[in-house]
Amino acid sequence: MTSKKISKALLERLPGYLNYLKNLPEHTTNISAKAIAEALSLGEVSVRKDLAKVSNGGRCKVGHQRETLIADIEAFLDYSNVTNAILVGAGKLGQALLDYGGFEKSGLDILVGFDVKPPKNRNHAGKPILPMSHLPGYCSTYDVAIGIICVPGAQAQSVCDLLVSCGIKAIWNFAPVHLDVPEGVLLQNENLAVSLAALRIQMKPE
Amino acid sequence: MTSKKISKALLERLPGYLNYLKNLPEHTTNISAKAIAEALSLGEVSVRKDLAKVSNGGRCKVGHQRETLIADIEAFLDYSNVTNAILVGAGKLGQALLDYGGFEKSGLDILVGFDVKPPKNRNHAGKPILPMSHLPGYCSTYDVAIGIICVPGAQAQSVCDLLVSCGIKAIWNFAPVHLDVPEGVLLQNENLAVSLAALRIQMKPE
Repeated sequence: MTSKKISKALLERLPGYLNYLKNLPEHTTNISAKAIAEALSLGEVSVRKDLAKVSNGGRCKVGHQRETLIADIEAFLDYSNVTNAILVGAGKLGQALLDYGGFEKSGLDILVGFDVKPPKNRNHAGKPILPMSHLPGYCSTYDVAIGIICVPGAQAQSVCDLLVSCGIKAIWNFAPVHLDVPEGVLLQNENLAVSLAALRIQMKPE
Repeated sequence: MTSKKISKALLERLPGYLNYLKNLPEHTTNISAKAIAEALSLGEVSVRKDLAKVSNGGRCKVGHQRETLIADIEAFLDYSNVTNAILVGAGKLGQALLDYGGFEKSGLDILVGFDVKPPKNRNHAGKPILPMSHLPGYCSTYDVAIGIICVPGAQAQSVCDLLVSCGIKAIWNFAPVHLDVPEGVLLQNENLAVSLAALRIQMKPE
């Protein structure tokens, strides 16, 4: 179950299944692949295959036990092991990510943000935002696996280089630019333009 | 070129090509599919096929003219036609999207935000944020195609229903819940948990 050979399409669907399962009415105890497929507008066969990959709890006629299926998907996605991250660039997007409560249940803890000019009027309940000069020291003190880049495009590569030089092994990039990372460093680009393009292309008249 | 039968994978790669092409050094006039493939860690054959779908400017030995290729990709993605959108839920993420300058060049103009409690200390340079009660009137006055949902999960479905009842034909959902939309309404979910899962699964030791 920890093989890296997992299709991107499966990974894309699993959080969707989780959302759906968690938002079902309280009293729902069992759910069939067919019902999930219909609700999410997916093919029943794909859903059946996906669920078989992550859970062996499905039974004929009865379907999946909802709580077991949720637990199996979360285990597959390794949600119980928390990975530490730091974030660079505490503008509106950066602060939104810092303050978003939903990542921890997905196995990510953003410990702290860094910014060339940390905001003064920061909500005390929020995660701390430190000046950039503290970043190397922080990384050598704490076990940080992921660096989240939320700076403007022009600064993104130099921030990326800094994170890599501090030993960070995975970059989650929200800046709308291409980044070069050395071999062995993972790079995941978050490109809102992709979703937007998908939506707009579908809206075009034939 | 306006067919809707465009693979999602192609749509995902096109904005990446654009970013890369636009961020090349100023003096770069020509670029080969091979160079693009290497820079973006993609297969050369896929890149060649992708570019052939959106541009007929590639030539043996010379490659693509950079400016022409940028223009062709932007035309394919319909970036010159601007689609109007409104945003509901002006928390940190909502405000980050409202203030993000990069959407207009991708063909999206977020005209205004709505919130149950519009923030008082709003930057004057930013897009206006109006109370929710103004939403139906706004939609009947202006030509709004896309509704962007940035409210908490518990409110997302009722906001979605409101947008649909106001005639909005495409929903871009940033709330981490499954939404039901009637047939004929497009739904694009922006799920950060997907990218995060992809990154974390790759980080797992074999």
